[in-house]
Amino acid sequence: MSAQDQLDRTLAMLAATPGWHRLQELRQDLDDELATAVLDGARRLSDEVLAPLDDAVDREGCRVENGRVKVPAGYHAAWRAFAEGGWIGLDTDSRFGGAGLPLVVQAAATQLFDRACPAFNMGAGATRSAAVLLAERASPELAQDWVPALVAGERAATICISEPGAGSDVGRIRTRAVRDGDRWKISGQKIWISFGDHDLTPRICHCLLARSSDAPGTRGLSLFLVPNAAEDGRANGVSVQRIEKKMGLHGSPTCVLEFEDAEGELIGDEGRGLSQLFTMIELMRLQVGCQGLGIASRACAVAESYASERLQGGDPSETPVPIATHPDVRRQLAAMRGRTELLRAAVLELAVTLDLARAGEEDAAARAAWILPLVKTFGAETGFGVADAGIQVLGGAGYTKEWPLERALRDARVMAIYEGTTGMQGIDFLERRLVRDRAGFNAFLTAARAAQPQGDPRSRTAEEVIDRLERLAERLRACPDAQARLGAADAWLRAGWIGVAAWLWPRLGDDAAPVLLALPERLAVLEAEIAGGLETAETEADERLATSA
Amino acid sequence: MSAQDQLDRTLAMLAATPGWHRLQELRQDLDDELATAVLDGARRLSDEVLAPLDDAVDREGCRVENGRVKVPAGYHAAWRAFAEGGWIGLDTDSRFGGAGLPLVVQAAATQLFDRACPAFNMGAGATRSAAVLLAERASPELAQDWVPALVAGERAATICISEPGAGSDVGRIRTRAVRDGDRWKISGQKIWISFGDHDLTPRICHCLLARSSDAPGTRGLSLFLVPNAAEDGRANGVSVQRIEKKMGLHGSPTCVLEFEDAEGELIGDEGRGLSQLFTMIELMRLQVGCQGLGIASRACAVAESYASERLQGGDPSETPVPIATHPDVRRQLAAMRGRTELLRAAVLELAVTLDLARAGEEDAAARAAWILPLVKTFGAETGFGVADAGIQVLGGAGYTKEWPLERALRDARVMAIYEGTTGMQGIDFLERRLVRDRAGFNAFLTAARAAQPQGDPRSRTAEEVIDRLERLAERLRACPDAQARLGAADAWLRAGWIGVAAWLWPRLGDDAAPVLLALPERLAVLEAEIAGGLETAETEADERLATSA
Repeated sequence: MSAQDQLDRTLAMLAATPGWHRLQELRQDLDDELATAVLDGARRLSDEVLAPLDDAVDREGCRVENGRVKVPAGYHAAWRAFAEGGWIGLDTDSRFGGAGLPLVVQAAATQLFDRACPAFNMGAGATRSAAVLLAERASPELAQDWVPALVAGERAATICISEPGAGSDVGRIRTRAVRDGDRWKISGQKIWISFGDHDLTPRICHCLLARSSDAPGTRGLSLFLVPNAAEDGRANGVSVQRIEKKMGLHGSPTCVLEFEDAEGELIGDEGRGLSQLFTMIELMRLQVGCQGLGIASRACAVAESYASERLQGGDPSETPVPIATHPDVRRQLAAMRGRTELLRAAVLELAVTLDLARAGEEDAAARAAWILPLVKTFGAETGFGVADAGIQVLGGAGYTKEWPLERALRDARVMAIYEGTTGMQGIDFLERRLVRDRAGFNAFLTAARAAQPQGDPRSRTAEEVIDRLERLAERLRACPDAQARLGAADAWLRAGWIGVAAWLWPRLGDDAAPVLLALPERLAVLEAEIAGGLETAETEADERLATSA
Repeated sequence: MSAQDQLDRTLAMLAATPGWHRLQELRQDLDDELATAVLDGARRLSDEVLAPLDDAVDREGCRVENGRVKVPAGYHAAWRAFAEGGWIGLDTDSRFGGAGLPLVVQAAATQLFDRACPAFNMGAGATRSAAVLLAERASPELAQDWVPALVAGERAATICISEPGAGSDVGRIRTRAVRDGDRWKISGQKIWISFGDHDLTPRICHCLLARSSDAPGTRGLSLFLVPNAAEDGRANGVSVQRIEKKMGLHGSPTCVLEFEDAEGELIGDEGRGLSQLFTMIELMRLQVGCQGLGIASRACAVAESYASERLQGGDPSETPVPIATHPDVRRQLAAMRGRTELLRAAVLELAVTLDLARAGEEDAAARAAWILPLVKTFGAETGFGVADAGIQVLGGAGYTKEWPLERALRDARVMAIYEGTTGMQGIDFLERRLVRDRAGFNAFLTAARAAQPQGDPRSRTAEEVIDRLERLAERLRACPDAQARLGAADAWLRAGWIGVAAWLWPRLGDDAAPVLLALPERLAVLEAEIAGGLETAETEADERLATSA
């Protein structure tokens, strides 16, 4: 069960992604041979180094010893191989030792790593995102000190946002940053910090949001780089309180960190911490899409292989037949594959659109901002849902630890929670990406309509869905009651993903059939849910008016 | 978080179940006070004895020592309390020491046990189902030997069907039974045997299907009682090969058993093993509904309590507010509660209908057979889905082992697999309960239409759904292509559950709203899926005709 099929599908999907060809026009160095060679290297690392770790690290987990986190034994060699292969710095600027490749190549590579061992890639992914953030945002001296060391795997990094009283509600962060000469002293507690401590590198820097002024909410927050130790090894007031016992991702230590007068350096401007950190948050949300894609791709491969080998059923007087020939199993496998390939199309579309935005293509930034919460949410749901469907294909075997799917399900479950819960993505997608600014939605409408192949009857179905989404958007924007509108956020988010299906199905080939199946009817369910909520609000508003009159 | 709310809701739902009142007319001993007293006893046992085990047995699990299975330490006292309380024999005939209460009271009690510790109740449930089976089917001597001992918890029992080459495909069972005087010798391997061995009782009898003749498929199968040991302790050729390492239900040992010339006694008639075992299979499928109900009820309670206490969001300059006040969290909690209460209504309806069938009520057996695959399937999916939704309400906390929901999700995952996978339920529901015999579907139509409250506008929605289900059934029955029809089995099963919602919503009170939300639209999705499959088959049939012409 190698990752070759996943690599082949990814290369074929890249070729079917118009943005990839536009990006190649803008970057002469970016030919298909280069992409193939890079991804083949990622496939080899995945198959040979990372995949053999996955089961063992789930069993072994991480532990705290003498106040420091020990990661699974196999990680040390894998980390070196990963760094030496240049995978941490794949999309980091070459001024800092990175390969300077576009994000879309990084995304195509990392979904192979996430197929093989998502827990390991949690650590590599955070360090890589921090390298990109610091290369863009830190002062030249700070960037030169940290980024090459991160890219080389000599140091590592995390992102520190959440606190006990500030999860989804970032504006309630209480960790304080107090100026101390040209440095800052940071004090407070951060929770849910993936790879918040480990023994892969001596130094770990925390990209951390703290309150640097009394300005309320997120306006008082600034971004800091806080190392766990100085270059000479001296401790810097950062300690691990515990690691969480979790359902899955056992190979990714989730830490509670205490900061006591820890020295930090300001990154960028005071009071603009959250918006600056968004460079990293954006990358990590795309990363969730890649995680879901890797997990779903593997689940498809496992289930397809099992179903073609497992013999059961058929005429009792004859040899039993592969279960893949049973109509309901065929349906299950097609549905899994359709969901997975739609996600592949969307992940590559988002990544290449972020590249095009950096290259200055008009509308690209708005389009990327629109699709980001969808890729984050449905990356998580597709990974979880396809792993779940795969367990069902395997039956009792799928429920045991003899097969990798129960682990995939446990690993995937957190992805709808971290990097912004589905609830937060829904609010973002409705309030920021539609009500406040509909540029992204408009750009989606244009792109989705332009993507329909002429003369294909399926285009009519897709166009109907797109038209109805436009009307639904108008209705939501016109709703005067913010509470009622927020009650519709989840349904609108799901409607958005149906819009993505209507847009991207021509890239899916035969896998489009289950994606298009009942698409208008599935939209109608969401329309009814949204209408139900808004109508109730309108009725209640009318009643209040009548009572007060 | 006691089970009191779950008990109160169950009593209220019983009162809203018309069959309960008809049963009370038929059985004068069955007053509401008795039911309340019995269920209050079950609640106390659940809260005081079983619930404290749940986390520990998940961590501790079971192990094989010297060829015998050791269950978690806490089970021994719990098993005694369970047996002494009379819970094993609650619905076993009083001739054998049972309480002789109806199945609906047993179901109402056991969902409280499944809320508290589903792994423990796997063992108690198998023994109890076997007691009912043997009381009905075994010879008087055999029943008198075994049933009182099972009811008293002095011995235990299992159900043994699956083999490596015969999972869903029961007709391929290869375990042989060879006559030896007036006994039989059994040889073969059985897999997925819950509590197939343990140290709770010295003797365990296996209710086992084996091939007793060369008649093909299921016609060659007979039902046997095979003890693991004779009364004097002498071994009987039954050995444990291993226990499975599973995603969840760690406190329920899933055994691979080897039978080598094990002595067994025939139960009932030769060659009718599968249909006789159906008494027990029926009880265990209802039991899956109860498991899902217990798990979903607890997940609702945990999520509702967390959401009312966890403060987050609101105006940043004010105190944060309980997350239960956020529109999207409110929506999530209402959806969880609606799904759970619909299942509660369906579980009680099925159980009381089985009681009425035994009491001779016309149509009751057909109605019970129709709803059984739905309660089995959507019991499993509701348990899993509501636990999953609960994790989402808790966010990161829900993913940790500090809270019981990740365990609930892992425990629930197998329920769509054992006792007949969802795929098998779909085939049963379509082929046996509609195409071959539509008495049950007709009885459903009559009951569902009669249940609609006059003058309530929601009745019109429900009636529309019921009418459309009737047309869909006609279309499926008319389809000449069995393969295409089987491809629609899953969608038809889901349509059936929508029919149950249209039927039972008047019993749900305020919890009906999310159940009715977009009900016709959700049916339209399934109609489109079914039509897609059948139309393709019709087109292909036309094409074959055109090619051959």
